[in-house]
Amino acid sequence: MGRWEPDARGRLERAALALYAERGFDQTTVEDIAVRAGLTKRTFFRHYADKRDVLFAGASVLQELVVRAVDSAPPTSSAIGAVIVGLEAAADLLRERREEAGARQAVIDANPELQERELVKLSTLAQGIAEALQGRGIAARTATLTSEAGIAVFRVAFNRWIAEAGRRDLVPLINETLDELRAAISDDL
Amino acid sequence: MGRWEPDARGRLERAALALYAERGFDQTTVEDIAVRAGLTKRTFFRHYADKRDVLFAGASVLQELVVRAVDSAPPTSSAIGAVIVGLEAAADLLRERREEAGARQAVIDANPELQERELVKLSTLAQGIAEALQGRGIAARTATLTSEAGIAVFRVAFNRWIAEAGRRDLVPLINETLDELRAAISDDL
Repeated sequence: MGRWEPDARGRLERAALALYAERGFDQTTVEDIAVRAGLTKRTFFRHYADKRDVLFAGASVLQELVVRAVDSAPPTSSAIGAVIVGLEAAADLLRERREEAGARQAVIDANPELQERELVKLSTLAQGIAEALQGRGIAARTATLTSEAGIAVFRVAFNRWIAEAGRRDLVPLINETLDELRAAISDDL
Repeated sequence: MGRWEPDARGRLERAALALYAERGFDQTTVEDIAVRAGLTKRTFFRHYADKRDVLFAGASVLQELVVRAVDSAPPTSSAIGAVIVGLEAAADLLRERREEAGARQAVIDANPELQERELVKLSTLAQGIAEALQGRGIAARTATLTSEAGIAVFRVAFNRWIAEAGRRDLVPLINETLDELRAAISDDL
């Protein structure tokens, strides 16, 4: 291992997000990122597998956090209640990283290949949540429907949070969006 | 163009689905498919771009059909009502092709790369439905939430329909699954 670089990982991430925004993801190299961060390629590869990994390295941490929160929601929680506990845990993680999360989303929205990767990530997260719900005794079909609804709510609420530049916290936006989904699919409309 | 082969497209599709099930998608070649169908590779490529296209060629037809049905749902229909009209149009298309649809799904479920392609297809369909809803005057956020909910309902209902070997029609399964989603996310649970 080379010498210790203070916050190398964070510096590399910020440099990568800035370059992806300026030049586009495809036009940015690992070399460019290392130079911008004032670090070496060697240091880059100690922290990330490749330039795409900068955008997706957090996915497994997020998934683990959300699934653990669903698992440990109060036993009296309904299926959707437990999902909301999980999504609130994600919101807690993202709260301090709003600017990076917004920059990351903009890069993904501009690149179809990254959008596919993001779809896979969200689908894996939905499956993880559905399995956690089944572990709470929820029937498989209800678990799938509830977790898919939760992910749809999260995506919409997240986009609002970014578009509103964080003027409101993500947690109330999640709950408001869930209410909107309920209203949208209710049968007395 | 070569000589006319009666139902070449259908014969190629059935041969491909049978081989994908027997040997796996990755282990099957276009040559194998043509031989099994009693046709030439040249005929195969007149109908399909590659062996993956056999599984996804129907996607744009399905999308067009669903979007047109959402567009032309009665003006009094709610957002979710219009989505259900669209999903019922998909059910009408699939009704006569249940065995192929089930075989296709089994091949996809066995192959992560095909699953990614299917996720992209369903995401494109959800976007198409959301745009059709916006064309009906539905606000963007509600359109997104309703179309995502509709796709989740359709996937679950479709899997039941295949698992039940078509003992019930897909249309009542869609409506029943929507009721399950409503119950699952209602706030008085």
